[in-house]
Amino acid sequence: MDKVKIGLLGCGTVGTGVIQVLAKNKDLISAKTGTHLEVTKVLVRDLQKDRGINDQNITFTSNVNDILGDPEIKIVIEVMGGISPAKEYILQALSLGKNVVTANKDLMALHGKDLFEAASQGHVDLRFEASVGGGIPIIGPLKSSLAGNKIWRIMGIINGTTNYILSKMEKEKLEFNQILAEAQRLGYAESDPSADIEGLDAARKIAILASIAFNSRVTFSNVYVEGITKITSRDIIYANELGYTIKLLGLAQEENGTIEVRVHPAFIPLNHPLAKVDDVNNAIYVQGDAVGNAMFYGRGAGKLPTASAIVGDIIEIVRNIFQKVYDEAYCTCFEQKSIKPVRDIETKYYLRLTVIDRPGVLAGIASVFGQQEVSIASVVQKRKDKDVAELVLITHQVKEANLQDALNIINNLPSIIQINNVIRVEELDNQGKEAE
Amino acid sequence: MDKVKIGLLGCGTVGTGVIQVLAKNKDLISAKTGTHLEVTKVLVRDLQKDRGINDQNITFTSNVNDILGDPEIKIVIEVMGGISPAKEYILQALSLGKNVVTANKDLMALHGKDLFEAASQGHVDLRFEASVGGGIPIIGPLKSSLAGNKIWRIMGIINGTTNYILSKMEKEKLEFNQILAEAQRLGYAESDPSADIEGLDAARKIAILASIAFNSRVTFSNVYVEGITKITSRDIIYANELGYTIKLLGLAQEENGTIEVRVHPAFIPLNHPLAKVDDVNNAIYVQGDAVGNAMFYGRGAGKLPTASAIVGDIIEIVRNIFQKVYDEAYCTCFEQKSIKPVRDIETKYYLRLTVIDRPGVLAGIASVFGQQEVSIASVVQKRKDKDVAELVLITHQVKEANLQDALNIINNLPSIIQINNVIRVEELDNQGKEAE
Repeated sequence: MDKVKIGLLGCGTVGTGVIQVLAKNKDLISAKTGTHLEVTKVLVRDLQKDRGINDQNITFTSNVNDILGDPEIKIVIEVMGGISPAKEYILQALSLGKNVVTANKDLMALHGKDLFEAASQGHVDLRFEASVGGGIPIIGPLKSSLAGNKIWRIMGIINGTTNYILSKMEKEKLEFNQILAEAQRLGYAESDPSADIEGLDAARKIAILASIAFNSRVTFSNVYVEGITKITSRDIIYANELGYTIKLLGLAQEENGTIEVRVHPAFIPLNHPLAKVDDVNNAIYVQGDAVGNAMFYGRGAGKLPTASAIVGDIIEIVRNIFQKVYDEAYCTCFEQKSIKPVRDIETKYYLRLTVIDRPGVLAGIASVFGQQEVSIASVVQKRKDKDVAELVLITHQVKEANLQDALNIINNLPSIIQINNVIRVEELDNQGKEAE
Repeated sequence: MDKVKIGLLGCGTVGTGVIQVLAKNKDLISAKTGTHLEVTKVLVRDLQKDRGINDQNITFTSNVNDILGDPEIKIVIEVMGGISPAKEYILQALSLGKNVVTANKDLMALHGKDLFEAASQGHVDLRFEASVGGGIPIIGPLKSSLAGNKIWRIMGIINGTTNYILSKMEKEKLEFNQILAEAQRLGYAESDPSADIEGLDAARKIAILASIAFNSRVTFSNVYVEGITKITSRDIIYANELGYTIKLLGLAQEENGTIEVRVHPAFIPLNHPLAKVDDVNNAIYVQGDAVGNAMFYGRGAGKLPTASAIVGDIIEIVRNIFQKVYDEAYCTCFEQKSIKPVRDIETKYYLRLTVIDRPGVLAGIASVFGQQEVSIASVVQKRKDKDVAELVLITHQVKEANLQDALNIINNLPSIIQINNVIRVEELDNQGKEAE
């Protein structure tokens, strides 16, 4: 086999990056695979647009059938994004016996099961390393090097935009909206930033990671999601004073066959390795019964990092094509675990309240928490302005339902002016889960 | 195929860990591989010793031929360590068509080529994830997820004992010998700690990593090595004052087909992710033209983390056995790059000197450096005691040969009482090596 032909669906930033990496490292990749990889056809919407690609072997087409109908194309790379028509194209490619590499987290988090079934029926590979953490190898390691572990928690900072915003808010003591505007100017945030700042992007990624870690299908709709728009500079300052930083955390953990999976801002201890991941960087922290703790760190997005992951997947597929095999067991969702309702999760909470400053107010609040079985670890009056005081409370480990019920009651107390913020505090300790 | 039989060579800490992980996660591993993995025979020196293993299916033997001669055993795990007879046993196993997993860094760093040739001739797999970084997935990711990158630098903190000692010296402001004794009490350092503290263990690991990263065989003897025994608490304090920490760094980089590979204590900037890796933790930092920077972090040693890596390799091999294939291209040393002599490397240096405190001394030193083309970035007099002063100098980027020549001359100046320490200062910046 002197060459393997590749078709590309989409040619935006990531698609251009794939062409670029395959071209620049052509000899290296040929030496590793024993063949030449050649992108022969690229699906684009606008045939007139100049993408700066001067490869004479590449045919641009706006008709997907030129690619899906080409029997010489053995690998299809989907980098168009979105659910439809990406899903239909991928399903068709798989059913036609073409291997597929996708960077599409939206699709994998929603329709992973359908895609895997099609790959299995087509006896071909479906790979998606680029869908989580950009260039950071995480799906590969989970599926091979760490495959002997019972993983009990996987979590991380898996959205660069929000990490940039929170890091900047912390360093420069500025507010969310100021930094968002700056991030948009710098291209770190999109003009419609909602998928990032509302936590949806991170939710898709944690759904994918949880599915692999716990061998049970977790979809986007299983994930409890909160974004970072309500975080203020003051919350971050108080977090620092208490020995924490605030990160948008994607967290999934399993206990007794039940999976808890959520994305929300969280206090995490300053001495935890995830606390030190700043700027647009991502990191995924895996806790397994044999490996203990392992962390994977790098750029979670961008043209070349994402292309790095895609080209790695292409190389693995080419090796399989050579061996006339495919990864039959690449989908490992062979179990059916239940998802824990958010009201059942247990963690600590940081609460910032504005109250009327008069005797008995704290007693009233404390009494409500006590009745709802919410145990308070500390209360500090942070500021006082005429008759108004700001209180910061940290709870012990409590059940979410109890906390929410208490907050509903407290919100109606006449002495409460506002519940300014409620942020989960994650200690992230190991709880002795080793295999010993 | 209803089961795959495994033979174990050696049953110390790691061997026991492998048996333990395979037993505890038996069902999970069966689900992932579609078969049952069974350790049937274990080679031990002392048949009487109780290892706390109560598996009735395991036969302990002191005769290696019971394992190598057993045609039912498809995978041999070598965890005995040392060069001989481990090498002979592995070569024999490979030539008999048995797949091999080894944790033996000494062997891989010295005889990797012979072992890979034997694996290739035997049409079997040879895997060694556990030889570097304990449970941290690094060899797998380099060989697959990152395979599309031209890697230009790989470096890391790859020895837990020395990282524990340096971290403790920094935190507690104590001297090397005090912490070494404590580390020995805690089991973090061996009774003969020389392989760790002299940098030999790290040198073996960086040789293995460099071979994979640069696709060219790098052996232990190619690595320039310095240990940490000369580092004092005072050096660490000065490093901190200057914005650095001191780590035992394994570093390999390639430029124009020449590989530079070294292990020595180094100043690294406090804001670099490797600076934050403390205690017994390890981290490997990979810089490639597509991925940018990626870091892999975790426990670099220990019973269960090492077993995690070995079991991951076993699972990959079982998948191959099922598919009736082996990883023909697992060895990627298809190039022959030269090794840069240490005298040709270029970096910055920290120098701590004790000198006679009189006018003209600094001029004399500066003049020698100037003549040898060593450019000085800063000089600070740190202490003064009667007629004796301590100077700390930081150089600009200079050639090692020039520095060493200068130091030889300076050492003979009458005004020099002692050259207390010479430590390389690594800025670890990226130098714009992206694929763009």
